[in-house]
Parts: sequence; structure tokens; C-alpha cells
Amino acid sequence: MDTLMSGIDVLISEVGPRDGLQSITSVMPTDAKKAWIAAEAAAGVREVEVGSFVPAKLLPQMADTAEVVSYARTIKGLKVAALVPNFKGAEAAIAAGAHKITLPLSVSETHSLKNLRKTHEEVFEEVRQIVALIKTLPVDRRPQFEGSLSTAFGCTLEGLIPEVTVVKLGERLVALGCDEVGLADTTGYANPAQVKSMIKSIWAAVGRDKLTGIHIHNTRGLGLANVLAALDVGLTTFDSSLGGLGGCPFAPGASGNIVTEDLVFMLDSMGLKTGIDLAALLKVRDIVKAAVPDEMYGFTPDAGVPKGYVQGGQGWGLGAAKMAAE
Amino acid sequence: MDTLMSGIDVLISEVGPRDGLQSITSVMPTDAKKAWIAAEAAAGVREVEVGSFVPAKLLPQMADTAEVVSYARTIKGLKVAALVPNFKGAEAAIAAGAHKITLPLSVSETHSLKNLRKTHEEVFEEVRQIVALIKTLPVDRRPQFEGSLSTAFGCTLEGLIPEVTVVKLGERLVALGCDEVGLADTTGYANPAQVKSMIKSIWAAVGRDKLTGIHIHNTRGLGLANVLAALDVGLTTFDSSLGGLGGCPFAPGASGNIVTEDLVFMLDSMGLKTGIDLAALLKVRDIVKAAVPDEMYGFTPDAGVPKGYVQGGQGWGLGAAKMAAE
Repeated sequence: MDTLMSGIDVLISEVGPRDGLQSITSVMPTDAKKAWIAAEAAAGVREVEVGSFVPAKLLPQMADTAEVVSYARTIKGLKVAALVPNFKGAEAAIAAGAHKITLPLSVSETHSLKNLRKTHEEVFEEVRQIVALIKTLPVDRRPQFEGSLSTAFGCTLEGLIPEVTVVKLGERLVALGCDEVGLADTTGYANPAQVKSMIKSIWAAVGRDKLTGIHIHNTRGLGLANVLAALDVGLTTFDSSLGGLGGCPFAPGASGNIVTEDLVFMLDSMGLKTGIDLAALLKVRDIVKAAVPDEMYGFTPDAGVPKGYVQGGQGWGLGAAKMAAE
Repeated sequence: MDTLMSGIDVLISEVGPRDGLQSITSVMPTDAKKAWIAAEAAAGVREVEVGSFVPAKLLPQMADTAEVVSYARTIKGLKVAALVPNFKGAEAAIAAGAHKITLPLSVSETHSLKNLRKTHEEVFEEVRQIVALIKTLPVDRRPQFEGSLSTAFGCTLEGLIPEVTVVKLGERLVALGCDEVGLADTTGYANPAQVKSMIKSIWAAVGRDKLTGIHIHNTRGLGLANVLAALDVGLTTFDSSLGGLGGCPFAPGASGNIVTEDLVFMLDSMGLKTGIDLAALLKVRDIVKAAVPDEMYGFTPDAGVPKGYVQGGQGWGLGAAKMAAE
């Protein structure tokens, strides 16, 4: 979206209110979710995945997603995204006014059956119905519809899914009418070489404009290295979670989203513009900490920025700073 | 060293027995150090920095370094490295038989004065004396002599040191007779763009063969991303510490070496040969844990390798695995 990328090099999509909160047992009060989202937007975050339209009995943490979407829509300049597991979820997301809806397709059919209780063909049928629904809407009210290839770099049940299989599933999603495909390293299995290879192969199959972002986990500590690899070949949108909420990767079974604060620090120190004020972002942690007892983490929050660090410049040690007088 | 790189793409230099142990207050018994080093060598590690020749009253953890060097020299195929703060330390390291000695030059003169109590000119004088001493030795007994540019990416006291300053100091070390210069991100300030820029600038000044390795910390979580950047421009030697010993970066003031296990996993999963058996390496942790109570960490040790992961292949999801039959 052009307006989203205006003035920035990289779009960070905060997924903490969805991926973070759905991975913890505590239920965050709706007001705290709203305060969190508003504070991130005020810090310069331009896209937030605010929740998931799943049955409340499955994920009580997400029961208020419609209300949160409606609220988030009132924040100027914020793109409001939501996860939908199926057509019914998409209907609810559209009714609530989400700007973007993401339906995960687990490239591992075993995982798909276990997670969504659906075969690939059954998921494709949901995609077809969602595309048909979107087409009934006036053009200016149509949400962006992403089909996300989850477990794209390997599955804890099936192990590695061959790249050719992932690419074929991505082609299918685009053929069925998804505006774009997403790539998700749900299991934290990806490595930088694989990330580059996968992106290039998907681009070759469906075109560069159909894949712009990636959702990376830090389960094996390679999260930011994988971001760097994706950035290197030309991706410009990255998902991350404030404080890595939803599971410290040091704990077994953790989801291990990459930490928004560390991601912002890395990109900013490289001289890339994210539009996000790191100091303001660090303060948002207090809102989350006050609302849920779960541990937040992050290297940059603990260590602080380098002495003399100034945000938003040409990068630390780059540009004019390389040649500064002694 | 050609024999060291034979059959491998990347040389990992384990610095835990030096940088790890000198950063914790516990003193590891000499026998445990020997067992650790022997076990890492058996797992395929080809270079270990086994200690530092500093006065025992300053760092009692390093009091047995001469004995450890002598022992490590008996391990076939292992390159034995040691840190030396000055000429006196170099004399002791050479007497003990170190294959490689590294003298740190803090590019921040403030840090140099505080850490080594020496101006840059005084450090250069030590370098001159060490070079002269090495020249008195028979050619086959001369250790490799590295001058390491520490705080190269910024200093906690002075902040950013301009790249031109770092490069000039590197040129000076080579002119004085160091076999090579090293780059050390002592403070964990580096970012991937800065790492690439710095390496290229030093290469332009002194030649590619004079800079082959880098010592990176993970203080702000960018450790492996910085490794990837350095690898991308062509560096082939990386320092790391087993279990990140010497300080979890989640604790303030931690040294935060990158974790050897995570580094091996990243490189191996990219299809690069390190010569190190990851399963055997993971078992070495038990020796360290039994000997010192300090916390060890690491993402890969906690999460395990991906399901179906086979080490030493063409990489996870790469080569033939990209095209495997469904």
C-alpha cells in the first residue's frame, strides 16, 4: 500500500495483539489492547494485526476481536489486520471493518488437519468463498486478502516441506484470487539461505508484487539473520511482536516471534527508515506489562541503545559518521 | 591457515575458555578446562582461544593459562590461541607454545587507558617489541600474531569511533608487523550494514588476507545477523562461546558472545561446512555446566534441531531437498 510505505523503507507489522496474545493463557482486557494498539500507532507503527476471528471457546483471548478492530479503525493512518481461519471468520472480519485479512494455509497438510481440521482442498474452498464475498463489496470497502503459507520452512509434524510444494500452494492461492501470499516460519526452522531461495522461487512463480512480507520466528535465534536475508533480496514488510510476547524462545514450545524493539533497532541502525520512534516504542512495553503477567523480553530493551545513538539518521557508523573528525 | 580450512567453509573459533570464563566470577578448575577443550576438539572445533596471559591477581580465572596452552597443544589438529595484553603476556604465551596470540588494541583511546592503562602509542610499542621477539624465533616456531581492533563498532565510554579512525589503526598494526588484524564488537553495538562497510574499508587499506575473522557479541540480538553480513562479504572466521558463557545478554552489562551452538546450526542449515558435529557439541555443555554454576544459554540447545534435520548436507530446504517428491 503506497500510503503505508510513504517515507519509510521497511514496514513493520506488529502482530503481538494477535500472535502474542493467542499464545499466552492470560486474557488481556479489551481496554489494554486498545491502549497498546493506540500507543504503538502513536510511536509510528503503521500496521497492526489486532486479533483473530476464531470461536471464543477456542481462544478466549481473541473473543473481543471485532470490538478491537472497530476501535483500531478509528486510529488515523493505521492499517488494521486480522487473522481469519475460514469463511465465517472472514465474514466477521469484514463486518468489523478490517483493512486486511489473512487466512493461513499450512503447507503441511498434517498440520492443516490438526490445526484447522481441513485438507488443503477444503482450505482452498474457503478461499474461493472469501474471494467471492469480497467481490460483492464496493471496491473501496474491499479488504486486502492475504493467503499465508504457514509452516513454509518446515513443520514440527512433517519436517521439511519441499520448496516446490510451497511454491505450488502459493500459485494456487493467487490463482484463486488472493491479493498476495505471505510466508510464515511458524516453527522457527528457517535459515537465511532457505529464506532467500524461497522468496525468489515464489516471486518467479507469481510475481514480485504478490509476495512482499514475511513472518519470522526466532525459535533458534536466527530471526534477525533471516530478516536480513529477506531484506537483502528485497522484501519490505516484516511481522514482529512487542517484547516477543507469546513465548520466550528460551522456553520449550515457545512461539518466539521476533522482538519488534530489536527489529526496529537493527533496521534503524542500518540507516533504514521504519517510521517508528524507538524510545516511544520501548515505553509501550509498560502498557503490556501492566495488563498481562507474562514475560516480555528483548535484547535492545535490556541493553539499551549504544552510547550517543541518534535515531533516524544515516545509520550507526554509516554515512557521514564513517568519516567524522577524530 | 590452509590445514585449518581444509574441508570446511567456515572456521569457528571457540572463545569460551577465554572470553567466557574471564567474564564470570567462578573459577573453572584446570581439569575441567582441559576436558572442555578436548571435547570441543573431538566435536570438530579446530581453533580454541584457551585463555589470557594476564596477571593472576587481576583475573584468577586465567591463572592456569600456561598449563592449559601446553595441554591444548597436545590435541592433534587444534590451533591453540591465547590473548595477550602486552609484551610480557606475549613472552609467556610464546613460552607456553601458543599457535596464535592476539593483542587487543582498543580503538577507543579512553577505553584503552581504562582497560589496558595504555595510550595507543604505548600499545604500538608493545606490538613492536612482540614483533621483534617473534622474529628471533625459528620460522617454524613463530606464532601467528593478530592485532585485534576492539570496540571497533563503538565504545560504551566514547560512543561511535569513526570508521576512518579504526581503519588507520588497523593499517598501523599491519605496518608494525602484525600478521593480521581482527575486528571485535566488544560492546555489541554493530549492525549488519556497518559490519560490511568496515570490513570492506579495512580490506581496501591493508588487503583481504590481513582480515579474515570477526568477534561479534549478541548484546542487542543482532549477533547472527552480523555474522551473516560478514559472511556475505567474504569473512570466513567467527568467534563464539559455548552456551554464550560469559554473560546472558538478557542481564545488564553482559558480554553476550554469540552462542557457538546457534552459530553452528545457522551455518550448517545454510549448507556451509564447519566441520563441527552439532550433537557432539551440544553434549560438551554438560562438562561446562558441571564445572561452573553460571548460566549457559542458547536458542538451538533449548529448541532442538528441526524435525528430520540431518547435519552436514546441502542445507535445510536447499539443494536436492528443494525439489524432493511430495
